[in-house]
Amino acid sequence: MHEEVADNPGSHWLLARVQIEIGDTLREAEQLFFDELQHPRACIRELLDHLANYRGKRLRPILLLLAGKACGGLTPAHRTLAAVVEMIHTATLVHDDVLDDAVVRRHVQTVNARWSNQTSVLLGDYLFTHAFHLTSSLGEAQACRTIGRATNVVCAGELTQIAERGNFDLSEEQYLEIIEAKTAELCAVACSLGAHYAGAGPAVAEALDGFGRALGIAFQIADDLLDVLGSEEATGKSLGSDLRQHKLTLPLIYHLAQSPRSEAAEVRRLLAVSDATTREALEPRLEQSGAIHYARARATEFVVAARQHLSCLPDSPAKQLLEDIADFSTRRTA
Amino acid sequence: MHEEVADNPGSHWLLARVQIEIGDTLREAEQLFFDELQHPRACIRELLDHLANYRGKRLRPILLLLAGKACGGLTPAHRTLAAVVEMIHTATLVHDDVLDDAVVRRHVQTVNARWSNQTSVLLGDYLFTHAFHLTSSLGEAQACRTIGRATNVVCAGELTQIAERGNFDLSEEQYLEIIEAKTAELCAVACSLGAHYAGAGPAVAEALDGFGRALGIAFQIADDLLDVLGSEEATGKSLGSDLRQHKLTLPLIYHLAQSPRSEAAEVRRLLAVSDATTREALEPRLEQSGAIHYARARATEFVVAARQHLSCLPDSPAKQLLEDIADFSTRRTA
Repeated sequence: MHEEVADNPGSHWLLARVQIEIGDTLREAEQLFFDELQHPRACIRELLDHLANYRGKRLRPILLLLAGKACGGLTPAHRTLAAVVEMIHTATLVHDDVLDDAVVRRHVQTVNARWSNQTSVLLGDYLFTHAFHLTSSLGEAQACRTIGRATNVVCAGELTQIAERGNFDLSEEQYLEIIEAKTAELCAVACSLGAHYAGAGPAVAEALDGFGRALGIAFQIADDLLDVLGSEEATGKSLGSDLRQHKLTLPLIYHLAQSPRSEAAEVRRLLAVSDATTREALEPRLEQSGAIHYARARATEFVVAARQHLSCLPDSPAKQLLEDIADFSTRRTA
Repeated sequence: MHEEVADNPGSHWLLARVQIEIGDTLREAEQLFFDELQHPRACIRELLDHLANYRGKRLRPILLLLAGKACGGLTPAHRTLAAVVEMIHTATLVHDDVLDDAVVRRHVQTVNARWSNQTSVLLGDYLFTHAFHLTSSLGEAQACRTIGRATNVVCAGELTQIAERGNFDLSEEQYLEIIEAKTAELCAVACSLGAHYAGAGPAVAEALDGFGRALGIAFQIADDLLDVLGSEEATGKSLGSDLRQHKLTLPLIYHLAQSPRSEAAEVRRLLAVSDATTREALEPRLEQSGAIHYARARATEFVVAARQHLSCLPDSPAKQLLEDIADFSTRRTA
């Protein structure tokens, strides 16, 4: 929740409250993240240093720490795990930029653009394996198991997404399964680990898993909407990449299913030859058919579901922040 | 030690003895490897099934099981860890094929050639994360820590190798550091884990680490020699890729250091514009200068050092096999 949400109304206030609630531990987790990613070799240090530019929303560590605070309080394990989930997320970003052939992330060159695809593949591997190593420092195999399984689910989700590229008959159900795996799983695990290490029982940890999962789905629907509607200046990354890669997202799935046959055929034609102008050509069609509205409404439903999962928790500033982050996740412009 | 070494004198006999000594557990580990890599989604199952074609030497699981047998005996943990080290090795192969743009491995199309680079990146990630998940099933954080750390060292070694491409002043010391990290580390860990889970104390586990490390270095020197001298038919993979990618290996490092200035300049020129004919052009030069002989002799020195590390163990068929595999590692033609 840093610079790139600064132009969102309310984001400053939300960020300030996060800082008051968990700022110290969040800074410690960030310090741990960078301390862990030191290396004696200059050629590797240079790459790891570049990752400081990828400093972003820190959504997953914030969720983990707020979940811990809302469920009883923070321990040293929370700090470690907050660094772990951010490291895994960073690994997936580095590999995503290879998959998407992206040249800019957070306003700076991607690793693949500045060095090479090969370097990006290995740097992502380095981050994944380092995250597992850091997890094991907790001395609990169960944490390793949880992180290992969740990361595997993320990879399976991404593999499915790649396999379904060019499938213009993708259903909403299939889409939701993919984003649940590739995005929501790690949010869910961040929240349930936060709860577990605060001493919560299995029922509460499962409720927090449900919160993170629903929030993650809402967040990804909003992210996919930004790829169609967003400003490259505000988001600091290349947009329209879903279209270029023939990846169907929720507004298009709805539009293709609801439009008259002639309109659906025309949109399929536009998608098949997708280029730099496709985003502009599609946007008014998606607005007119109600597809944008529909995708926003679906995201809001997941936010409502997320908040309901928190009903088992006593009121607290941390719980209130989790609710507000869920609300905010669909109102982002970056 | 399967089909691709069948044309090596002595390899059949070595393989038969491995089968007698640890065949049952090796088969169980292989079954576990494939059982673990099942997935409900057809698109992922298809990829995982393709990995059966990559079935190769199984060097790392064989080392792990023989080390266990030589140090006291095998337990269920050995079977799990044998599958883990093979899964990590397979993950690095899948990513290596992206890095090398390789189209053939073990006589079949690579994942990147048959599907795409993106699919290979994600499949490698899937294998890494699954290996960590499987490790955690042992219920011991120390095993997760050992595997996590070793895999991270492997990635750092590969990153360094990429960074040093095109450095025609690479020293033998730098070369040895790179191959120790990228290849020998996982062999070392396989041997020390095999010893540890057989009940060996820290000193014996460390000796086995030293054995695996020296053997791994010898093995990689031999592998790099094959890239210059080998037959594509026998190895079942594209050769000359080190040259194409301007990666210096031991015979070239020696040749450049020992040759008169004019010859070194000519070889640098050949390397700089490396193409399909470079391998043929270099081979006689490397033979004549004694560079091939030197690299073979260095590999043999590491084999001798490897065998010395085993002196702490009582004689047994498993120990004898470890010694013979070390000998054999430099005499491979595939």
